[in-house]
Amino acid sequence: MTDQDHDAIRAIRWRNGRLELLDQRRLPHEERYLTYEDAPAVARAIADMVVRGAPAIGVTAAYAVVLSAQQHRKVSPDGWREAIEADLECLAASRPTAANLFWALKRMRASLRSAPTEDPVFALLAEARSIHTEDVEANRRMGALGSALIQQGSGVLTHCNTGSLATGGYGTALGVVRDGFRRGCITRVYADETRPWLQGSRLTAWELARDGIPVSLLADGAAAWLMCRGDVSWVIVGADRIAGNGDTANKIGTYGLAVAARRHGVSFMVVAPTSTIDPALASGEEIPIEERKPAEILRLGDRAIAPEAGVDAWNPAFDVTPADLIDAIVTERGVVQRPDAEKISGLLEGAGP
Amino acid sequence: MTDQDHDAIRAIRWRNGRLELLDQRRLPHEERYLTYEDAPAVARAIADMVVRGAPAIGVTAAYAVVLSAQQHRKVSPDGWREAIEADLECLAASRPTAANLFWALKRMRASLRSAPTEDPVFALLAEARSIHTEDVEANRRMGALGSALIQQGSGVLTHCNTGSLATGGYGTALGVVRDGFRRGCITRVYADETRPWLQGSRLTAWELARDGIPVSLLADGAAAWLMCRGDVSWVIVGADRIAGNGDTANKIGTYGLAVAARRHGVSFMVVAPTSTIDPALASGEEIPIEERKPAEILRLGDRAIAPEAGVDAWNPAFDVTPADLIDAIVTERGVVQRPDAEKISGLLEGAGP
Repeated sequence: MTDQDHDAIRAIRWRNGRLELLDQRRLPHEERYLTYEDAPAVARAIADMVVRGAPAIGVTAAYAVVLSAQQHRKVSPDGWREAIEADLECLAASRPTAANLFWALKRMRASLRSAPTEDPVFALLAEARSIHTEDVEANRRMGALGSALIQQGSGVLTHCNTGSLATGGYGTALGVVRDGFRRGCITRVYADETRPWLQGSRLTAWELARDGIPVSLLADGAAAWLMCRGDVSWVIVGADRIAGNGDTANKIGTYGLAVAARRHGVSFMVVAPTSTIDPALASGEEIPIEERKPAEILRLGDRAIAPEAGVDAWNPAFDVTPADLIDAIVTERGVVQRPDAEKISGLLEGAGP
Repeated sequence: MTDQDHDAIRAIRWRNGRLELLDQRRLPHEERYLTYEDAPAVARAIADMVVRGAPAIGVTAAYAVVLSAQQHRKVSPDGWREAIEADLECLAASRPTAANLFWALKRMRASLRSAPTEDPVFALLAEARSIHTEDVEANRRMGALGSALIQQGSGVLTHCNTGSLATGGYGTALGVVRDGFRRGCITRVYADETRPWLQGSRLTAWELARDGIPVSLLADGAAAWLMCRGDVSWVIVGADRIAGNGDTANKIGTYGLAVAARRHGVSFMVVAPTSTIDPALASGEEIPIEERKPAEILRLGDRAIAPEAGVDAWNPAFDVTPADLIDAIVTERGVVQRPDAEKISGLLEGAGP
């Protein structure tokens, strides 16, 4: 890593046989790493959003399995396989929707099965490190593929946080921003503040400022006006789940950006590893949308920002952008332009997009 | 006023020769009226958003001219006309976009010119009271005209605050909501929280709950998804300035709502008195747009919500919705459907829309 890569942040670190997680709940006010020595504590950290972002959750869970092996290898030389299995279950129950969590645990379970009987720790650590390294490599590949679509000197708009904090490192949509900024095709980055959780203000702004990429925050409602002024030529976002036809579930607010982008001739890019694609779902209509508590709208942290009584709130966590509003889905296997079921299926079957 | 009118709030009061303003910065936590005795203090109150909303700013400025006359008539029996003129300039500089401010000051200046030389206060107070009373009457008329366009049992979405708090009383867009709710054509009201000032959460939710109209708040970014679900058939907003061709400047976020509404076949209504129309401007491109401090995005009250260093923010207070996205402009003189320069000009010339 060099300064020129604009990539100095790692929120997940393996050090001296322990797992360190940057506590994202405290950003941007405080940079504090918490240290973990056992898997159930890591499962709680995932549930409590110390770490968030589907790829980051997968990497974190993989290291937690190493912690589990270290611990149980010592205390129960005979029954450690069963003890690790219990920790795997515990980790799987930490968040319900992150596909990468189950995918990473599946890989660790396979590694455990083929590990030497006397001591699985070395093999498991090697696998966790692979999962982590592969994630960063996939992000770098997507960064290069995505930024190649962008003309020199462009302004771009992003939503929520899809960066080093949300992945093993480098980021998905923010990986494209990093690569594009380094190569000069991206010269201005705008970030929606992303209510109600303010991931844009708290995480994306912190991450980009930290890595030397200038960023302008804006209220979510100002995005269409920004596009109307001609200040951005691409909207670049991540994805929580992509249906077989390319319809994409992502943080609430993404769909409105796609609608506004189409009106203004602004291109719309989704950046996500192929593990985000759920080919079992024919279209976005089948993607379940989590509705979260009204309190997230009615309060900010411990502070009421709406009347306490007589007021309700509607708080969907995600929306679905139909494939016909998406110009490109960028994955580690290649770019799908103007996505549809046939092209997505070709990508997954390795035929290339 | 009766309970059935859902109209119990007045934010601007003239009492015992002084002006009282409900301090809207403290809502919904505290209901406190501030008292003013001179025009420069009122100009600061307008700039500091003690009172906001274009019609309310106009009414407030009118009463401030009465304060000016009271004060200067006493202290400078010879030079009071010049002193009042200086206060008029000061008031005109308090906010740049609200057309009603300049309109109200023009009426007060005319009244001053024709007022008795020995003491203009009585005449000026009569004129300010007229401006106030006419505003409430215009709002009630617009409420009836606007709600007549809405089918029974409709859901509507509104943005910012356009109610009793933003006007002399009753409201523009919220006047339509009040009338429509009373008559049963509006059964569900959704309100954007309206970042960065949260006028939706702090003011609209407070005002509607206070007047017995149920309301659901949502993050601004969720509005397009709400329309996609089919939950609203009208978006109803106010206006800060309307150009001669119908292009409408209103709170930032309005334009994105209009773009999304058009995509989903949701109708879009602007409710504003004719004093909001600035026929000197041929189109929205000529409307000056106030850009406010980055701090309003980077902080919420006294609390930082973004990194303190290395992060900029773009904070336009308004955007412009082109006339071709507006289905109806509702004024006290009548409704202009599918507005254009000819129809607006016909309305202003009294030929009717």
